[in-house]
Amino acid sequence: MRVDTLITNGRVFNAYFKKFIEADVAILDGKILYVGKQDTNLLQPQKIVDATDKYIMPGLIDIHMHIESSMATPYTFSNEIIKRGITTIVSEPHEIANVMGVEGVEEMLKASENCEVDVFIGIPCCVPSTSEKLETTGGVLGLEEIDYLMRHKNVACLGEFMNFKELISKEDSKSHRILKLVREQFPQYPIEGHCPKLSGLDLAKFVYHGIDSDHTQQTIDGMLERIQNGMFIQIQDKSLNPELIDVLNSMDLFEHVALTTDDVIASKLMGSGHLDYLFKKAVSLGITPENAAYITTYTPARRMRFYDRGVVAPGKLADLIIIDDLTEFTVERTFKNGKLVFSRSEACDQVYEIPKFPEHFYTSVHLTSISEDQLLLKTPHVKDGHVACRVMEINDGTTYTTPLEKKVRVQNHRILWEETDNLLVAVFERHGKSKNITLGLATGNTIKRGAVASTYVHDHHNLLVIGKNLKDMVIAANKVIESQGGICTVENGQILAKLNLTIAGILSDKPMDMIGKELQKVVESLNCLGYDHYCPVMSLATNGLAVSPALKITDKGLVDVLQSTIVSLII
Amino acid sequence: MRVDTLITNGRVFNAYFKKFIEADVAILDGKILYVGKQDTNLLQPQKIVDATDKYIMPGLIDIHMHIESSMATPYTFSNEIIKRGITTIVSEPHEIANVMGVEGVEEMLKASENCEVDVFIGIPCCVPSTSEKLETTGGVLGLEEIDYLMRHKNVACLGEFMNFKELISKEDSKSHRILKLVREQFPQYPIEGHCPKLSGLDLAKFVYHGIDSDHTQQTIDGMLERIQNGMFIQIQDKSLNPELIDVLNSMDLFEHVALTTDDVIASKLMGSGHLDYLFKKAVSLGITPENAAYITTYTPARRMRFYDRGVVAPGKLADLIIIDDLTEFTVERTFKNGKLVFSRSEACDQVYEIPKFPEHFYTSVHLTSISEDQLLLKTPHVKDGHVACRVMEINDGTTYTTPLEKKVRVQNHRILWEETDNLLVAVFERHGKSKNITLGLATGNTIKRGAVASTYVHDHHNLLVIGKNLKDMVIAANKVIESQGGICTVENGQILAKLNLTIAGILSDKPMDMIGKELQKVVESLNCLGYDHYCPVMSLATNGLAVSPALKITDKGLVDVLQSTIVSLII
Repeated sequence: MRVDTLITNGRVFNAYFKKFIEADVAILDGKILYVGKQDTNLLQPQKIVDATDKYIMPGLIDIHMHIESSMATPYTFSNEIIKRGITTIVSEPHEIANVMGVEGVEEMLKASENCEVDVFIGIPCCVPSTSEKLETTGGVLGLEEIDYLMRHKNVACLGEFMNFKELISKEDSKSHRILKLVREQFPQYPIEGHCPKLSGLDLAKFVYHGIDSDHTQQTIDGMLERIQNGMFIQIQDKSLNPELIDVLNSMDLFEHVALTTDDVIASKLMGSGHLDYLFKKAVSLGITPENAAYITTYTPARRMRFYDRGVVAPGKLADLIIIDDLTEFTVERTFKNGKLVFSRSEACDQVYEIPKFPEHFYTSVHLTSISEDQLLLKTPHVKDGHVACRVMEINDGTTYTTPLEKKVRVQNHRILWEETDNLLVAVFERHGKSKNITLGLATGNTIKRGAVASTYVHDHHNLLVIGKNLKDMVIAANKVIESQGGICTVENGQILAKLNLTIAGILSDKPMDMIGKELQKVVESLNCLGYDHYCPVMSLATNGLAVSPALKITDKGLVDVLQSTIVSLII
Repeated sequence: MRVDTLITNGRVFNAYFKKFIEADVAILDGKILYVGKQDTNLLQPQKIVDATDKYIMPGLIDIHMHIESSMATPYTFSNEIIKRGITTIVSEPHEIANVMGVEGVEEMLKASENCEVDVFIGIPCCVPSTSEKLETTGGVLGLEEIDYLMRHKNVACLGEFMNFKELISKEDSKSHRILKLVREQFPQYPIEGHCPKLSGLDLAKFVYHGIDSDHTQQTIDGMLERIQNGMFIQIQDKSLNPELIDVLNSMDLFEHVALTTDDVIASKLMGSGHLDYLFKKAVSLGITPENAAYITTYTPARRMRFYDRGVVAPGKLADLIIIDDLTEFTVERTFKNGKLVFSRSEACDQVYEIPKFPEHFYTSVHLTSISEDQLLLKTPHVKDGHVACRVMEINDGTTYTTPLEKKVRVQNHRILWEETDNLLVAVFERHGKSKNITLGLATGNTIKRGAVASTYVHDHHNLLVIGKNLKDMVIAANKVIESQGGICTVENGQILAKLNLTIAGILSDKPMDMIGKELQKVVESLNCLGYDHYCPVMSLATNGLAVSPALKITDKGLVDVLQSTIVSLII
């Protein structure tokens, strides 16, 4: 019989037996027809691809990630990851939803339509991540908006539910109503979770409400407790360490986990890679290539109830990658729906048609120039003397901060933070709603000189400026305002690096390699300013993340995350 | 916090770790809230059940079976299996669909509504099992009817697709259109298969069309090939043998299989049991109790995409069984949705409200009395001499028959089969459509004396009579006609045993134990008449099954199953 493509003599990953098997793979009408050797002679292929000595795997599937973390548009992002063997992603557009609401989600869906990669969406259910009392966002998704969005095509799940405090403590809250809606009206969709440190009866209550995955940083005990309670674990880079891998291997827990990238910034993507990087890392740390393949293809597909992919078997989508080497994970060819979309040796047709977002997405920073007097830190209660301040200590290797208490001298009502090792942090509401400004103090693994300003700030994406002097802070902030979004570093009045994020203040419309290079310059300039952190851009972006313990800053004030309240700078 | 029931100190089966764990189980609003020990003190239970030294498991789930095989109504059947620890079934009502069409399926759904057991339905997609050319059925389900039925509540899947011959050979056949409809319109439902002996490219084509399970008798090679191609294997009694279990154990294939009962007749159900029997048998043959639990709860739930059950974990339905002993599988208590529905030691509320079927279901045998002259086997072409006849040889241990060629003497156009060791088989169309009568010959493992008549004849359920003499055949057939359905055995003009099946000619409205006893008498009388078969009732019922090789009989004639054609008695 006629088939479109026959890939011959490869070592094909069979997920059911968890092993590579010598076989030919026949493709018909975008799907796999036959995998085997015995009956290949009955096939008349239009095209033959020789895969002798090579490995054939399903395209990788990343089920927990945010395209916005790459700061690229879906189309640009897709073109990059297809080369790395990723053919399906589930992206949760909660960054753009925080800026643009329902329209942001719909525009991301539209912008994903012509991507080579299949882009599914998790509907953001915590926009804002906390409540309107703790942060001002550009968009708010309530019950009605979520109900509306869940009905869209290419929805895979309810995106990460993170407000576990409200769920566990308050009955009939917005959280309860959202979960009830999804469990009852859309039972076909998984409900994704975000629940660091939750345990015991609290964890059970969380799962009881239908949230049965977690992608946050895992401890071994936490992971085991989650699996025992029926949770699927999405292991991201932070969690992928030798101790955890030992447990996965010794207890054979691969049914219950997948590798996911969550947030990969452009410079990291262009440098070390994406899910392909996690595959390599997993193998280098002692997971067999078979199990690494399993948890980047089969288990993520199953978790998202994608019955049509994730295995090389008859009837499944012909999303296939040919790999030279399983340790280096060098992708030679990528097929999507049976079509060759990437090849190291052949040219592939690619239609470059970058989708445009609506006009107002390019004018989303509703701020005029700021001035130094907006950054003056004062206290009306003390004229001269000292005050005890809540200071946010930023830590390397994590998004968590430590709340410190520090004495700072006051002179004529001005808090003289410049005399200390602290930095000033300011958040300007930029969605054109409240015009709030919050001032706070930070220390620890952050910059030591100059200033940095950014509109890429989880999750509210207001303008955050952190600096050691007001002049640099004003320059950095105004540069970002001028370009309608982005990140800018400044020292001694000079701009060190700058990445424009002109779409909703969080995405660039430039090609991926350019975003990567510009962001890398930003990272280097941050390092240069003394930012001692494994990922300074993400660290900076999470200074405002009010669901990540313990002390964070939003336009509404300093947030005590564990208590879910606004606290004053001065104790 | 308040909980409804707390089951304390049990050994709880955790499917994720595949082991029993010492824990308490708390139930709230019909679902499991908490499984553990550490935080039990935070719970205020309304009721406590002590499970010290006992095992707690999810209720068993049987995903491939036909209620009609028990010859009981859903309600009666449910009351029996709940005692055996089964709490969810997926029944495919293709027997009643063959008699009553869409209405039969809808009435089975209605009759299942108030059952303690959750009854899901697989929509029969092969009614008739072959084509209207090969058999006359009371009901026919076409594309439109299947589309209509798939939209009903409590549908779990497209029921067993069995017409693989048509699918593989003919493009744009009814089979293709049905599968296309389901794949495109109802992708959330699995498509169940029936494909004995299929292999290689043919098997791949079958799976390519979306059918990815098989519940027929498995060989080891066949099972491995199926799993490798992405099929889920439903292991029924016939397949559960030491060799197959060795392979499951050594290759750890438990992710890809479940135990299912398919057809269990009333006498077997009341004697050895149902899915509980398969659990015990599996354990006795060397599957660990943990794996036996896994493939009777977790994997069947997953296969049917029942995300709400099949594990003891927070948020899942509180379908729980308490068991004294895992080898004997003695069920002490069954909870359904948190409610105690069976207990060995306590009385449970049960509302007996046997649902009535519509009036015309009780008058479904559209035949008047038959007479001996309708059974005279003649040939117009030969007056005196011999003819070579196709004879259906019935074999023990299988539903397959062997076609034999036998010479029989002819005198004055009458074929003198009485002189041979053959029996006469007659099929009377009984749905009031064609009034067809087919006469044929049988030998082998069947009765040797007297006669038996039955309207329980797969899948068309016409009236089949087999006998050694015409008198007994007429008496048996007329008794079954008189009672509007059933099975009746006769010898020397005397009725030996009789089971009335007054609902659609295939179900009884009597209590389960009475059906069991009466059917047992039928079985014993068949044995007494020399029927040498491990299950004579099922063997008799499959003499008419035109999808089971090789030579079968319907009202349209003798069927050459492998060629899908009607063949003449005389060669």
